[in-house]
Amino acid sequence: VQIAIPLFPRFTALDCVGPYEVLSRLPESEVVFVAEAAGPVTTDTGALTLMAGAAFAEVARPDVIVVPGGPGTRKIVDHPIVDWVRAVHPTTQWTTSVCTGSEVLGHARVLDGLEATSHWGRVDLLSGFGATPVSRRVVVQGKVITAAGVSSGIDMALTLAALIAGDDVAQTIQLAIEYDPEPPFDSGSIHKARPEIVDALRGLSSTRR
Amino acid sequence: VQIAIPLFPRFTALDCVGPYEVLSRLPESEVVFVAEAAGPVTTDTGALTLMAGAAFAEVARPDVIVVPGGPGTRKIVDHPIVDWVRAVHPTTQWTTSVCTGSEVLGHARVLDGLEATSHWGRVDLLSGFGATPVSRRVVVQGKVITAAGVSSGIDMALTLAALIAGDDVAQTIQLAIEYDPEPPFDSGSIHKARPEIVDALRGLSSTRR
Repeated sequence: VQIAIPLFPRFTALDCVGPYEVLSRLPESEVVFVAEAAGPVTTDTGALTLMAGAAFAEVARPDVIVVPGGPGTRKIVDHPIVDWVRAVHPTTQWTTSVCTGSEVLGHARVLDGLEATSHWGRVDLLSGFGATPVSRRVVVQGKVITAAGVSSGIDMALTLAALIAGDDVAQTIQLAIEYDPEPPFDSGSIHKARPEIVDALRGLSSTRR
Repeated sequence: VQIAIPLFPRFTALDCVGPYEVLSRLPESEVVFVAEAAGPVTTDTGALTLMAGAAFAEVARPDVIVVPGGPGTRKIVDHPIVDWVRAVHPTTQWTTSVCTGSEVLGHARVLDGLEATSHWGRVDLLSGFGATPVSRRVVVQGKVITAAGVSSGIDMALTLAALIAGDDVAQTIQLAIEYDPEPPFDSGSIHKARPEIVDALRGLSSTRR
């Protein structure tokens, strides 16, 4: 199973490193980070740079793609990642996104007629891509899976691991990465966070998503 | 607040990218990835390379350090990261680790007399560093915080964010990264996973931790 993770400037690191950490543990899998050109791609913070191992042109038939989000998706319409997703999607087994990576899928016309999700602050925009926005953490629609904001990629990837290799493998991976979450607060969704926290974040134009 | 994340060959990516994603959102914070030399450092899978922005010698007084784990910690005793941790620890505000990063703290003699944790498969080894191994997800002992395996770094970092900047900031960050975990299985700890899953993983000598 070849799993390709496409990068673009100002992506959010955890969006893709979460799924990478899960999916790289699938038996007989290969993960490749891919970008316009092989080489460094810097995240939204400017503090972290990941290396793409291959250029889009070199990864033409991936079995699985995981498209991360981040502030960079707001100007993504003219970026080569959109053409690449459009080109590889017909032959993937699974086409997936995390956070605003769903907007990249949208630009590539992958979401037409499907339910899809995104970061809570951007999910409503998916209707502009012909999708029906839904507020679930992981949304499976045929071979297209979208996940909510940033950290949800871990849950998405475990779901995907089970679909690819079965529940036993997925559960083994969950134990390997000791994913038994104990957040110190219960503030991870707009339905649980205190209203003033939600309002504060909505007001931050600089909020990374 | 300067937050330094030291890298070494064959570290586990999520161990540090989870905390990075949380702590980089602290107000007035700066995250720097640091290594023996500035430049690329490759993870345990070989499929992902992160760029260190600075050399150990250039980051002499970090306020916070977050030491990731990974298979690379098994041969870490002679690596410059140990001397660096030993040198910077006396002036940090917080010295933290994720997964077997606690073994790096142990080699640097940070854990003497403290309770500490690690990946479930390696936690007992901490007694060799003068620590008392405990099976909790996040262990706070004065200014030293250790976390359990891989994904626990997100919980640790939210705890740390609250200690540094208060509960409101930590809760705002939790919402920003939409950390409202919904694992599809309940297999994330040895107390919850089915025995055959635990046994399978214990038997895998190649298991990344």
